[in-house]
Amino acid sequence: MKGILYGVGVGPGDPELLTAKAIRLLRECDAVAAPKSAGGRQTALDIASPYIGQDKTILLFDMPMTHDRQARNASHDAAADALCALLDEGKTVVFLTLGDSTVYSTYWYVHKRVAARGYDAELVPGVPSFCAAAAAMGRALCEDGEMLHIIPATHGRTEEGLALSGSKVLMKTGKSVLEVRELLRQRGELGSAALIERVGMDGQRLIENLDELEQPSGYFSIILVKEQSE
Amino acid sequence: MKGILYGVGVGPGDPELLTAKAIRLLRECDAVAAPKSAGGRQTALDIASPYIGQDKTILLFDMPMTHDRQARNASHDAAADALCALLDEGKTVVFLTLGDSTVYSTYWYVHKRVAARGYDAELVPGVPSFCAAAAAMGRALCEDGEMLHIIPATHGRTEEGLALSGSKVLMKTGKSVLEVRELLRQRGELGSAALIERVGMDGQRLIENLDELEQPSGYFSIILVKEQSE
Repeated sequence: MKGILYGVGVGPGDPELLTAKAIRLLRECDAVAAPKSAGGRQTALDIASPYIGQDKTILLFDMPMTHDRQARNASHDAAADALCALLDEGKTVVFLTLGDSTVYSTYWYVHKRVAARGYDAELVPGVPSFCAAAAAMGRALCEDGEMLHIIPATHGRTEEGLALSGSKVLMKTGKSVLEVRELLRQRGELGSAALIERVGMDGQRLIENLDELEQPSGYFSIILVKEQSE
Repeated sequence: MKGILYGVGVGPGDPELLTAKAIRLLRECDAVAAPKSAGGRQTALDIASPYIGQDKTILLFDMPMTHDRQARNASHDAAADALCALLDEGKTVVFLTLGDSTVYSTYWYVHKRVAARGYDAELVPGVPSFCAAAAAMGRALCEDGEMLHIIPATHGRTEEGLALSGSKVLMKTGKSVLEVRELLRQRGELGSAALIERVGMDGQRLIENLDELEQPSGYFSIILVKEQSE
């Protein structure tokens, strides 16, 4: 009997934002896998750590944040190989991923490889960072008939995204935040925008007035731009 | 000392998708409030019911799903009045809302009234239905540099939304699902679309081939349209 792989979203930072299902799976599983950044950070594992018993096997996988497709494929293939070996032993494995497991998840690339090889693999949803960001700001993400656009600011599509009608979430605006501010200013939307860094993590910072920003933000930063209502 | 109001997203249906924070607040609060539909349904309360002790005061509020702004305002004002009276008594109140509390939440309209009157009111995020839908389908909502567009199909903006570049979530497509299918067919995107009804609830139904649909879906239905990758 082969094991099962669960891709579990741990939410954006606050360990209390894990779901009851995530916590149960962490209790029941044999092994916990998580991504490790080039700098050695293991944010998803840190968030879930209050729920991980000392008896669990921990596997950390290098997941390079790079546009180099070949390097990415190699790391995802290696992770899939290691996970499938555990599943062949009948182990139940929980793979932790930041936020929700279906929204720009590094886990997704591993998931589709393992599923394509015929193994049982289940996606377990979590709270996306943008929902926690809106909640921390005391704002609605979207209401009534508004559209909501999620825009990955790391991929050079910010200007195109900001021109859309509706409310917007700009993900991971860190390095580009000063340029995004200028675009918002030109569009007359600076007053509708707010930024949050490290939502739910140590060092969370909410900036309601983007003119207070003096330098680029860190990696975990989100800007919300709310549609102006009539 | 006045009480605090927490607007808590309970996720889309499965009680295991409540967060640890939602469960703790339900344990600690004095009273639990939830919306009641015109037909008497109290879906958010039903989802959270496994976590609600018998000692809790339960308040149900009529939340008419109507475009009649006056009727909506009257019901939201009445709910805010009742909640503020409890907060004046120093009570802690959890207001339950489906999915996430910042995404098309009926609670939001009550929240902004209570906050505007100077009371402590906190939004607690939850798992949005579209994340659970994608997970149940075994799909990513968005990956790499894709944009993601959330489109409220109840408001006549489906055609405009489908024309956007990126992946799309069509919310609450129930009544309009056969028209949406024709739009997808015309756009050549029927093969990238899938529908899920009642995700995480009794009667969940996943429809990968929309041509199998013979009649409109119920209220809780979501279509995902994934951007075709090169």
